[in-house]
Amino acid sequence: MDHRQQENQVAAISEENDVVTLINVFTVEPQHQQKLVDLLAEATEKVMRHLPGFVSANIHKSFDGVRVANYAQWKSREHFEAMLKNPAVLPHIGAVMQFAQFDAHLYEVSIVDEHA
Amino acid sequence: MDHRQQENQVAAISEENDVVTLINVFTVEPQHQQKLVDLLAEATEKVMRHLPGFVSANIHKSFDGVRVANYAQWKSREHFEAMLKNPAVLPHIGAVMQFAQFDAHLYEVSIVDEHA
Repeated sequence: MDHRQQENQVAAISEENDVVTLINVFTVEPQHQQKLVDLLAEATEKVMRHLPGFVSANIHKSFDGVRVANYAQWKSREHFEAMLKNPAVLPHIGAVMQFAQFDAHLYEVSIVDEHA
Repeated sequence: MDHRQQENQVAAISEENDVVTLINVFTVEPQHQQKLVDLLAEATEKVMRHLPGFVSANIHKSFDGVRVANYAQWKSREHFEAMLKNPAVLPHIGAVMQFAQFDAHLYEVSIVDEHA
């Protein structure tokens, strides 16, 4: 059963969540934006979400057509770094690098201000 | 009463949320990272959260010390663009531009994959 058909999934941003956050901004030619979204979704479904420490991946398309951003949460830096070294991840990174650049950095949540 | 003292605030990322997402990555000298977080939090508290269409602002500090990312949600592009033209916002942008660069783009949520 494809879990993505199960329900509306929601990721939470909170100062009290014990996670690290990867913000990865990819740049692509506009004609490749949806292809990149599909590849990242596939990598998440097939590999990432089964790895220890995965919390969420949230894939965004820019209105300007030339960016895709992944806002991803992992339980710790150690889990994130282990993912980068996982042999199952490499082919997915390689496929993306054929046609996209990326700028990825790791963050902690500092302040959440949400409308009441 | 300072609403920030009231409770743990949580922002939600969902494919079904009817929002647009601003991902704004600021770069700063490491000694200015916390000052930038404080200025952005102040601007959010004093101005942004009172504007029509504000949904959330989520301020992140990079572990490398030289970035601050704001993951912000607005009800529509029109609300976001009206904010940019609001005279009350300008002094806050000006204060930030004294010591930080930024790279801001507007996105829609494409796919959320959250660990069960």
